[in-house]
Amino acid sequence: MNAPSDALVRVHTDNGIATVTLNHPERRNSLSMAMLEALSEALSGVAGDHQARVVVLASAGHIFCAGHDLREMREQFDSQDYQLRLFQQCSKVMQQIVNLPKPVIARVAGVATAAGCQLVASCDLAVAAQGTRFATPGVNIGLFCSTPMVALSRNVSRKHAMEMLLTGEMIDAEHAVNIGLINRVVAPETLDETVYALANTIAGKSAHTLKIGKEAFYRQLEMPLADAYDYTAQVMAENMKANDAREGISAFLDKREPSWKHR
Amino acid sequence: MNAPSDALVRVHTDNGIATVTLNHPERRNSLSMAMLEALSEALSGVAGDHQARVVVLASAGHIFCAGHDLREMREQFDSQDYQLRLFQQCSKVMQQIVNLPKPVIARVAGVATAAGCQLVASCDLAVAAQGTRFATPGVNIGLFCSTPMVALSRNVSRKHAMEMLLTGEMIDAEHAVNIGLINRVVAPETLDETVYALANTIAGKSAHTLKIGKEAFYRQLEMPLADAYDYTAQVMAENMKANDAREGISAFLDKREPSWKHR
Amino acid sequence: MNAPSDALVRVHTDNGIATVTLNHPERRNSLSMAMLEALSEALSGVAGDHQARVVVLASAGHIFCAGHDLREMREQFDSQDYQLRLFQQCSKVMQQIVNLPKPVIARVAGVATAAGCQLVASCDLAVAAQGTRFATPGVNIGLFCSTPMVALSRNVSRKHAMEMLLTGEMIDAEHAVNIGLINRVVAPETLDETVYALANTIAGKSAHTLKIGKEAFYRQLEMPLADAYDYTAQVMAENMKANDAREGISAFLDKREPSWKHR
Repeated sequence: MNAPSDALVRVHTDNGIATVTLNHPERRNSLSMAMLEALSEALSGVAGDHQARVVVLASAGHIFCAGHDLREMREQFDSQDYQLRLFQQCSKVMQQIVNLPKPVIARVAGVATAAGCQLVASCDLAVAAQGTRFATPGVNIGLFCSTPMVALSRNVSRKHAMEMLLTGEMIDAEHAVNIGLINRVVAPETLDETVYALANTIAGKSAHTLKIGKEAFYRQLEMPLADAYDYTAQVMAENMKANDAREGISAFLDKREPSWKHR
Repeated sequence: MNAPSDALVRVHTDNGIATVTLNHPERRNSLSMAMLEALSEALSGVAGDHQARVVVLASAGHIFCAGHDLREMREQFDSQDYQLRLFQQCSKVMQQIVNLPKPVIARVAGVATAAGCQLVASCDLAVAAQGTRFATPGVNIGLFCSTPMVALSRNVSRKHAMEMLLTGEMIDAEHAVNIGLINRVVAPETLDETVYALANTIAGKSAHTLKIGKEAFYRQLEMPLADAYDYTAQVMAENMKANDAREGISAFLDKREPSWKHR
Repeated sequence: MNAPSDALVRVHTDNGIATVTLNHPERRNSLSMAMLEALSEALSGVAGDHQARVVVLASAGHIFCAGHDLREMREQFDSQDYQLRLFQQCSKVMQQIVNLPKPVIARVAGVATAAGCQLVASCDLAVAAQGTRFATPGVNIGLFCSTPMVALSRNVSRKHAMEMLLTGEMIDAEHAVNIGLINRVVAPETLDETVYALANTIAGKSAHTLKIGKEAFYRQLEMPLADAYDYTAQVMAENMKANDAREGISAFLDKREPSWKHR
């Protein structure tokens, strides 16, 4: 299912890791309707691909993603239908990342703004190169980053989110680590090494277990405490029925490497 | 609508920025019923004042705000009606800040305790002078800071909130930055410069866009993810109908400064 | 109500502070069914003990708590009834800590993994010795830490929680402070001094006030803002009816030490 190299979104799967690459650097990898559709299709593809156990979301060129495609939006100023579809399609893609039954790691270099910053916030993990900058600058063009803030405000505290949203100013990668938007910042020359080491670590786990855990993580977050415990106690009891849990526990007690059925 | 200089709360509007100042330093700017009513009135005033695009919440004297007025409360020990009205009025004022259709920046110097700390937590942004201290010390007087913790616990993590609430001890401004209670700490002599530079940056945006964004921010925070996206996708599509969004996008693409209709 | 010194869980109450100690170091203080039942009983005991105003949760030996007892779980691989009861009992104990009408401080040294890390996350406050490590490593044995993440994800941000859950790797105590999982890290030789100084500070408050505040804290966290304020305004008005609030306010205004009725 690897897409042609000139596609808007490329997918390359190797050793259990699917790299999904935004591939329109001449337009700053902006999320035009076509890009959003290509990304949605790519995510559906890796969701169903048994060879892919972990997903890396990357970008070609010097800009990770500059948000929506303002030229396209200006052409469609009079189409309220286009606009609503655009924001809904974008929201659908972001939720696809959250609902994907595999961990998604953002590999970020350059600039991630507006819906591009939202992509980073929507991934399960994120690693950025030193020098990367982040912003939600919609306020500068009269269009508040209202959908990006859904993801942003679920990653960072209120005052940090509001500072980004109200000022529209860039923050650097070190600050992004401090406020919780990303996990790590590394030297640009070690970005791939770091991202793929992390991806490999996770790809070595049981894919079935990762699927159970990721789904339960986001579901329980939205529940009151007592409901979250009722739900996850059931999830763990279900998890225990799987071969991989029995194999993992036995391997641990027998001091040997586990052999997952669901690689 | 500038109030007389001896009022409990002064309002001064200049260049799009309304400064609301607690002005009862001889009583540590404590939130007596009269102070709460004056503050509520001031906030209603700036909400409706088209000259005010951003609000700065400040204080006269060496204490930002020491919380409720304990002398008044003692005088009313036997009036359960007074007590309930007091906490309800206080809660109303805090929610007025959140619901105000304009960004509110706390300018904090000195000491902000109990409901004074809650004021800071309730603002969209907060900047403090070095040396400023914060606490929720109700536990020391047998009256747990139960309403202040509503705002506090929505700004900082549980263990940090609980440490403040259970010990009642002061934290310094640097720690307040680290835990997310405030955005920045600066030298006392640059406090005003920093606060008004931030306010000016935000006052240069479209007031209509700020109103849309702030309202949507707090509403979507209380929704499950899917609902938050359904809601904000609609908000962005509505935002696109406004002149300011079209002007902002066009100005950006044409590489010129936008001219907001809703200044 | 002090248990015998060879019990799975020891309870020792002194000067208002009940220390509950996991006491099965030869099994890494793992949460077998018997250990969970003993811990539940100990927590019920201190909840009802008027001599205990603050609780310290500690462990004997070099491992704070290694999570579930995998040997016992392997013996019960075919009993789905056991498994569901195990996770429900564990979830019950964690919620007992949250619902206990007294502050609970985790005193952590060594290693706290899986449900052991969850114990730390479930306490109101946590202090660790330098060198202590934390992990949610279930993913390594095919059994995702789905119940531990309920507590973890309510303490730390999403990306930090996901990094621990997806990699299963250890984090050190300094990182645990930075992400909000624990309050403080101190030199091992000053751990007890720090923990008991904190406990003593809190034990000096009105027990009635602490009970009101802790209960309200966790309840209001799960409410929308307006409901949280309606609720806590009532809580404060109720709190004002108590002798301890009147005594505390009067003592403060009269510049004397308060004398709590509810020590």
